Amino acid sequence: MTDPQQSRSPVQALCFDVFGTLVDWHGGIAGQLEQFFGPRGVQRDWGAVARAWRSFYQPAMEDVRSGRRPFVPLDELHREMFQATAPQFGLGELSPPELHQVTMFWHGLDAWPEVADALVRLRKMHVIAPLSNGNVRLMIDLARHNKLRWDAILGAEIAGMYKPRPEAYLRSVGLLGVPPSACALVAAHNDDLAAARAVGMRTVFVRRPMEYGGTPTPDAEPTQPWDVVVGDLTELCDVLGC
Amino acid sequence: MTDPQQSRSPVQALCFDVFGTLVDWHGGIAGQLEQFFGPRGVQRDWGAVARAWRSFYQPAMEDVRSGRRPFVPLDELHREMFQATAPQFGLGELSPPELHQVTMFWHGLDAWPEVADALVRLRKMHVIAPLSNGNVRLMIDLARHNKLRWDAILGAEIAGMYKPRPEAYLRSVGLLGVPPSACALVAAHNDDLAAARAVGMRTVFVRRPMEYGGTPTPDAEPTQPWDVVVGDLTELCDVLGC
Repeated sequence: MTDPQQSRSPVQALCFDVFGTLVDWHGGIAGQLEQFFGPRGVQRDWGAVARAWRSFYQPAMEDVRSGRRPFVPLDELHREMFQATAPQFGLGELSPPELHQVTMFWHGLDAWPEVADALVRLRKMHVIAPLSNGNVRLMIDLARHNKLRWDAILGAEIAGMYKPRPEAYLRSVGLLGVPPSACALVAAHNDDLAAARAVGMRTVFVRRPMEYGGTPTPDAEPTQPWDVVVGDLTELCDVLGC
Repeated sequence: MTDPQQSRSPVQALCFDVFGTLVDWHGGIAGQLEQFFGPRGVQRDWGAVARAWRSFYQPAMEDVRSGRRPFVPLDELHREMFQATAPQFGLGELSPPELHQVTMFWHGLDAWPEVADALVRLRKMHVIAPLSNGNVRLMIDLARHNKLRWDAILGAEIAGMYKPRPEAYLRSVGLLGVPPSACALVAAHNDDLAAARAVGMRTVFVRRPMEYGGTPTPDAEPTQPWDVVVGDLTELCDVLGC
């Protein structure tokens, strides 16, 4: 895709990682936690709580990826992950409706500023879909909240397996009816792109230095020569000529 | 849904049958066949060819539903069904690229005139998705061709099973994160609605008297007291107050 017109088959479809790549989970979770707990008189470093909550993400999914546990949607993992996080910060016990409300904070995250407009441009020449570990309803709600126009919702729940297992990518690409080489994954995370490349997809690294709210981000720089590296999706539109 | 505000839980999601209900397969297939074969000097009753092609639809899917054959996408069944149809009309042998081109006619069908605008209205208050036997890429292409704005693409290929088997409905509704009773199927076919009702969904019958191009349609009238019966999707918007 360094030379998308010539080198290989043209890219027909773009799949997108979502948390961190398209939406600001750190700021959105910290902000909503503050709005929820503040009026209850609870003050914490909400960014730290958001990062702790997110830190359970890979271990929770690994139970599914390893086969120790059947597939469960990310909403359910998010709920359990919060229950594991809350005691660390002395947040006390929430009622079931409150716990549900907090879990649903992930459905109300804001996209990075350029995302909605850039997707409109990218969609003119490509089929576009999220390829996230978030469940379908979570993706629907994020799309409605941020006015993101997708062609389809793909990803882990459709595949019944979490990234970076190859099935998650291959099932999604297969549903688009294109070979992996005609589909690029757009992501801010090196491990996600490595898994996509391993199944034959093309790769776009997007820098998201603020993913962790200004604290160090594990994916500040590309660790492999990805096909394209951009600063945001507007730059990707320009690179692809959309 | 006769009394959507009071009688039962509110309808949060609307799922749609597509062929016949939203798009005019009879006119679209007949017209594209004529455009393809006419310049080759082949004249036939293209409506009759379209109906014959479609007549293999249920038997082809039954091979999958019965377990005699693993799931294959509808594009593949459409190709095989055309190969079974062509000899009946003396259409001769097509090359593989030609056969692919003809099979893809199903991706270029026009929606009934009110559909795109009505979906915009319905989407304001409901999550909306196709729940079709058509594969995901076919649904994407129909949506792009007709400017249909969906929240997600659901249906047989996602479920790995064709309607009217219950899995096709339950998997789709489950991905929307709502109970079946909070989701209505909108369809022009009684058997489809009967299967949706059997799994607990609510039901909207849309009259499509021209589905078979003016020849008798098997579903001219509702055969059960469906929750709502409408003449088109604009009327459904009015009934639901969208």
